[in-house]
Amino acid sequence: MLDIKKIRQDFLILDQIVNDEPLVYLDNAATTQKPQQVLDALNDYYHTTNANVHRGVHTLAERATAAYEASREKVRSFINAKSTKEVLFTRGTTTGLNWLAKFAEEILQEGDEVLISIMEHHSNIIPWQEACRKTGAKLVYAYIKDGALDVDDLRSKLSPKTKFVSLAHVSNVLGAIAPVKEIAELAHGVGAYMVVDGAQSAPHMAIDVQDLDCDFYTLSGHKMLAPTGIGVLYGKEEILNQMSPVEFGGEMIDFVYEQEATWKELPWKFEAGTPNIAGAIALGAALDYLTELGMDQIHAYEQELVNYVLPKLQAIEGLTVYGPQDPSQHAGVIAFNIDGLHPHDVATALDYEGVAVRAGHHCAQPLINHLGISSAARASFYIYNTKADCDKLVDAILKTKEFFNGTF
Amino acid sequence: MLDIKKIRQDFLILDQIVNDEPLVYLDNAATTQKPQQVLDALNDYYHTTNANVHRGVHTLAERATAAYEASREKVRSFINAKSTKEVLFTRGTTTGLNWLAKFAEEILQEGDEVLISIMEHHSNIIPWQEACRKTGAKLVYAYIKDGALDVDDLRSKLSPKTKFVSLAHVSNVLGAIAPVKEIAELAHGVGAYMVVDGAQSAPHMAIDVQDLDCDFYTLSGHKMLAPTGIGVLYGKEEILNQMSPVEFGGEMIDFVYEQEATWKELPWKFEAGTPNIAGAIALGAALDYLTELGMDQIHAYEQELVNYVLPKLQAIEGLTVYGPQDPSQHAGVIAFNIDGLHPHDVATALDYEGVAVRAGHHCAQPLINHLGISSAARASFYIYNTKADCDKLVDAILKTKEFFNGTF
Repeated sequence: MLDIKKIRQDFLILDQIVNDEPLVYLDNAATTQKPQQVLDALNDYYHTTNANVHRGVHTLAERATAAYEASREKVRSFINAKSTKEVLFTRGTTTGLNWLAKFAEEILQEGDEVLISIMEHHSNIIPWQEACRKTGAKLVYAYIKDGALDVDDLRSKLSPKTKFVSLAHVSNVLGAIAPVKEIAELAHGVGAYMVVDGAQSAPHMAIDVQDLDCDFYTLSGHKMLAPTGIGVLYGKEEILNQMSPVEFGGEMIDFVYEQEATWKELPWKFEAGTPNIAGAIALGAALDYLTELGMDQIHAYEQELVNYVLPKLQAIEGLTVYGPQDPSQHAGVIAFNIDGLHPHDVATALDYEGVAVRAGHHCAQPLINHLGISSAARASFYIYNTKADCDKLVDAILKTKEFFNGTF
Repeated sequence: MLDIKKIRQDFLILDQIVNDEPLVYLDNAATTQKPQQVLDALNDYYHTTNANVHRGVHTLAERATAAYEASREKVRSFINAKSTKEVLFTRGTTTGLNWLAKFAEEILQEGDEVLISIMEHHSNIIPWQEACRKTGAKLVYAYIKDGALDVDDLRSKLSPKTKFVSLAHVSNVLGAIAPVKEIAELAHGVGAYMVVDGAQSAPHMAIDVQDLDCDFYTLSGHKMLAPTGIGVLYGKEEILNQMSPVEFGGEMIDFVYEQEATWKELPWKFEAGTPNIAGAIALGAALDYLTELGMDQIHAYEQELVNYVLPKLQAIEGLTVYGPQDPSQHAGVIAFNIDGLHPHDVATALDYEGVAVRAGHHCAQPLINHLGISSAARASFYIYNTKADCDKLVDAILKTKEFFNGTF
């Protein structure tokens, strides 16, 4: 069992008043708060160690390099990759997916297909649009059924033409969890690469990339307690070896001549220039924090919150919850609309009650269009949220409804 | 006059013992230390404000967006850009130069030329090698004379075939300052774009991109008191408007349909995904710190250190200083070798005395080859270094020489 009271003490930011109300932060799918342990790791690095990595022989540089590479090992262990060679530090999931779409440009030919779903985040759509536009390949969509990925539809669209299948593990709007292990098997069956956008899964459940047998997996540190500006792209070693680097510069080379250059081994081949050293080290501290709580415990606790709050939301007259209606199928990200109210007005009204939720297209316009709406409000939960937060959300929604019904 | 004693109090990391000796940090060209004011900005952001930017209507998201965009304005003012539309946040100089080389790929044709110098950092070489390889354009080098850029050689290689001229403002090995304002005029005379790699200049002198009249200017936050993982690409608005974005995802779009998407206005068109929000805000704090000291004062102080230490180094028998021999022409980065000693051994021996210098090819292999050496040691100075640090460097070099002459 998680000790939420103790956890909350690590997040000073939560202990504040917003619009005369205690802050209830429910925008965790956008970014999470950072525990003091992560900020301490940042401060400690800058107070004792800061130096550039890999190129120095002096004490600070050796310490910084050791800490940076130790963090890579923490990531390896967290996602159970076979080797640290398979763990590339990136700026975030967006960068990871862009790199993969560049790799796809080298492979795709006219008539080939890339299969994604209508639930994808823009970062898992536009890079593939560009890769298809440049190569003449076709971008094919699987659609949804009962608020979740329609696996039958996806299966029917898989063929030997399919070269990449790229899917969000958890939808950042619907809260639906895709059976990516099963789909990886289907993808491999037609010879396609399987890419998993783990931005909304890695923070919330145990991830084992070997068990999923995906070829690539991406995550964003800032959505899992780490600072902004750091993420990870996991790839199977044999595939990464075939891939060309996407950024070029210092650190990633062996030899540079006037007209050509050769690359370092994995993983450094992909890490051009000074990396976000402090960010990577603080990501390691975030993974330590999550591991100590236990990813299974975290998942169970978030499920408990969803089991508690989803029925209360569903019971509000005129409120539509998107995604799976069964709490056991719904991750801790809940998008909703209220009849007659614009979601921006809802979010503004909730903010007035101290409740931070997001409103908009959630970087998923094709899904929003597909749902026949123009935007939605979204509450998303994490380890420091409580049932009291859920109650406050529900109360604030009821107040908002009352206020707008009264005034309009 | 800078109050160095007061400045040093802001850098707790400097007050430490390394190998039983007080740390003398002379690896500032690789990365600088961070003052407490910058760390306070980071901590303050994470303790009070942290939220994702641009997409939220709740209080924290509005605060975070305001702070992020305020930092962009600080950068604009620091480099005197015309508009914040011209200030793109990147991961660092390497990313900025890679974006420009991608832009070049859209423009370059067979027979066109890109003109760089033999003094460039790998990040200002390899992206252009790739752009040339893909387009059939030619990468042309200007060479050096008396340890600095040979402007006559550069002029002789400029022609209507030249589409891009890309130069380090200050060489990270030679410490030579290139007359980029004069060269921008020459480049524009043949219709070429002028790119300035400001990684080693922006931290050390006042930069006015309008006065330089360069088309692009890049900098890395971590080399100027800011955290790792944040940098800036400046570009003239009319040119950035013609450029395609390089990364695709959330935040940078207006509309996304299943098969196509449209981009936001500048500067956001280029900033896909969650940016390094905290890094950008802390970069703003770093620029505040530098501005308060005064960039002209900083430049004058570093010049004073070079005037002091360069003759002492030149006087050491068997020691070769690379780059301009006249201190007034030499920025605060001094690469050197000692007859008969491997620079890695020199750096290790200096570290044993608490003096942190770098040794290697300094991400400038073509220059190192051109100099007829395989590597060099390098001491690089910043605002917290003192004449006592210079003395310690010289003493440690003399001790090192004595030690190795005694044992070998």
